[in-house]
Amino acid sequence: MKNVRCAKCIRCGKEYEALPGLTTCECGGILDIRYNYDYIRSVFSREALADCDDFSMWRYRPLLPVEPDSPAPPLRVGWSPLYKADALAKVLGLRTLYLKDDGLNPTASLKDRASAMAVVKAMEAGAKTIACSSTGNAASSLAGNAAAAGLETYIFVPSRAPKGKVAQLMIFGAHVISVEGSYEDTFELSKAAIDRWGWYNRNAAINPYLSEGKKTVTLEILEQLHWRAPDYVALSVGDGCTIAGAWKGLKDLYALGFIDHLPRLISVQATGCCPLNRSLQTGEPWQPMAEDTLADSIAVGVPRNADKALAAVRESGGVAVNVSDEEILEAMRLIGRTCGVFGEPAGVTGTAGVKKALELGLIDPEATVVSIVTGNGLKDTQNGIRAAGEPMSVRPDMDALLAVFEAQGLKP
Amino acid sequence: MKNVRCAKCIRCGKEYEALPGLTTCECGGILDIRYNYDYIRSVFSREALADCDDFSMWRYRPLLPVEPDSPAPPLRVGWSPLYKADALAKVLGLRTLYLKDDGLNPTASLKDRASAMAVVKAMEAGAKTIACSSTGNAASSLAGNAAAAGLETYIFVPSRAPKGKVAQLMIFGAHVISVEGSYEDTFELSKAAIDRWGWYNRNAAINPYLSEGKKTVTLEILEQLHWRAPDYVALSVGDGCTIAGAWKGLKDLYALGFIDHLPRLISVQATGCCPLNRSLQTGEPWQPMAEDTLADSIAVGVPRNADKALAAVRESGGVAVNVSDEEILEAMRLIGRTCGVFGEPAGVTGTAGVKKALELGLIDPEATVVSIVTGNGLKDTQNGIRAAGEPMSVRPDMDALLAVFEAQGLKP
Repeated sequence: MKNVRCAKCIRCGKEYEALPGLTTCECGGILDIRYNYDYIRSVFSREALADCDDFSMWRYRPLLPVEPDSPAPPLRVGWSPLYKADALAKVLGLRTLYLKDDGLNPTASLKDRASAMAVVKAMEAGAKTIACSSTGNAASSLAGNAAAAGLETYIFVPSRAPKGKVAQLMIFGAHVISVEGSYEDTFELSKAAIDRWGWYNRNAAINPYLSEGKKTVTLEILEQLHWRAPDYVALSVGDGCTIAGAWKGLKDLYALGFIDHLPRLISVQATGCCPLNRSLQTGEPWQPMAEDTLADSIAVGVPRNADKALAAVRESGGVAVNVSDEEILEAMRLIGRTCGVFGEPAGVTGTAGVKKALELGLIDPEATVVSIVTGNGLKDTQNGIRAAGEPMSVRPDMDALLAVFEAQGLKP
Repeated sequence: MKNVRCAKCIRCGKEYEALPGLTTCECGGILDIRYNYDYIRSVFSREALADCDDFSMWRYRPLLPVEPDSPAPPLRVGWSPLYKADALAKVLGLRTLYLKDDGLNPTASLKDRASAMAVVKAMEAGAKTIACSSTGNAASSLAGNAAAAGLETYIFVPSRAPKGKVAQLMIFGAHVISVEGSYEDTFELSKAAIDRWGWYNRNAAINPYLSEGKKTVTLEILEQLHWRAPDYVALSVGDGCTIAGAWKGLKDLYALGFIDHLPRLISVQATGCCPLNRSLQTGEPWQPMAEDTLADSIAVGVPRNADKALAAVRESGGVAVNVSDEEILEAMRLIGRTCGVFGEPAGVTGTAGVKKALELGLIDPEATVVSIVTGNGLKDTQNGIRAAGEPMSVRPDMDALLAVFEAQGLKP
């Protein structure tokens, strides 16, 4: 990998050769992949991209830590649509809003970007089995991407994970272990099992390659915006890996001179589980919190990638904002009605945060904001129903229909 | 529309000007849009397509019945991935199999292709409201595509429609009427309401433009295969509109000289609801049937587009094959485990039919087959769970994990 310089511990600074099986530093710190931007500039440009006909995350291969001859895995991950959300912007009182629908990835979440990367690195490492713990989306994305590539998976999920997500990974043929405990319990059991059996590790905060997969979401956004950097990028935050990856992508583009300024991050957590935002807001070190939110994908009381996430938001001059479960459900309705996009609760939390940040005067209404919908609402229809309510029920009869319309105050 | 000649009744042959509000012929027959292929050939070629950077169904605009200046609707529909499914082909004993994952459309089914077309035609007609009846996918796709375009929707669904699909369209802000009756009852009530209030009609067998949207699925498949026509295209059949649309796309390409032969269709229905296949198999006129299958999207006892569907399969020299619910669930597992694709029951029925057709010796194992996955499994997780089973449940403890692995016969 001529484009990669090393993996560097973000805590103690120790550098490692970028071997495919890397996990954390011996000091326990998280590793960060460092690039040789001079080399990358010599082989990669905005013009080269314009001619690239690979419309997947692998169009950014010169910026990804994979061997040049490693095949891309079978599922088509990335190049999700970026919609200009004028109707929603109007409702929110914002000048310009874009929505990136990453729920349109193969297993319906942004996590496919990390799992596709995990599959490539596992194959480079010669592994036949990959394992992870996950609140759900990392799990199903790993199961799907690994199944398509012919790899076996062991997946640990907390027992609260929504049925839809579990069904998805069972269908993909994963060995699924539902852990009767918190996300933290689930993570620890997966760690012990991975140590015991030597499986390839797809836990995002442990494996430094995964946020490099995730960063493709911001690479795409900027290319889709023709390299005009927005003022803000908003997204929901759980473990911290996704926002760290998003920031890494932006910094890469800035280092290469593809964009002329860095957007600021809007870090959105649920009021009932906001350990990272609490730290950002108070300036104190982060502390574990209860996992009290319906947005299961970001209900992470002990974030595993706190260091990278906090550094990202601070470096960007970012904004931290918390939203209630009711505000999350309201964002589901708003995005559905105005954009035709159905996001899962954690998937719309970024947008709920944009609304809240505007209400609190934390961001300028004249700004240009990109909000990332990180997962599809079909993964959690129970909360979809909770947000949207039940349909009108009628007998198959015109008089019954008229009566129901009248009762609802509908005048077609 | 210089590319469109007229709309012609497939029953009596009467021709109509292709106005946006067209429904059925005065004789009750279904209309078919007829093109001016000489004109299309003068403005459209395989080479022109190779330079087109619109990766959505609208890349085939010269073959679509829309005004040149009609804007494409906001959601990005089409250009879903076509996967070469070698592992699955091996399991089935087939030389070459491709899987088209149309569950990756914005609202997670092939029906987005028809609904996007409906939105364009409704806007051309100056309508503000669109209505339809549907087993679910047409409904959610209409709701999503219309919401993104700022149009209002009234949607009639049978009360058996899965919760996930209903949640989706409620989120999109549709007025949803759940009809306590069969699909037939639902259809008739929607028809009466559409007549009464003059809404734009998105019932697929009534509105001749919708199968023109659906045909983009085969246009894409052939372009993705670099214009090498496969021997067979397999898909599930309910109302008959989708297979009719798929055939129309193939015939268009053949008429233009883009492909050198026409593939044969494999029409797959559920054993418990197969009125069209029964007609194909017996040569008798079709008769209504009960709607006895878990594949809700194709549980259509009174198919509304029987004429076009039967003609398509017969013209193609096609194959009709029925599959049991158990075979459908087995196909869900097979596709999930080998391809990393999660299809809804009706979405995998085409592939279940390929397996069955091979077992029955109806198709040659040396053939090249394309099977279309018409909808995402996340729309119906109840049947996903039914197909895949429940995960292993353990306490957060290594000894408990070892005990469960041993009980399951797992040796990691």
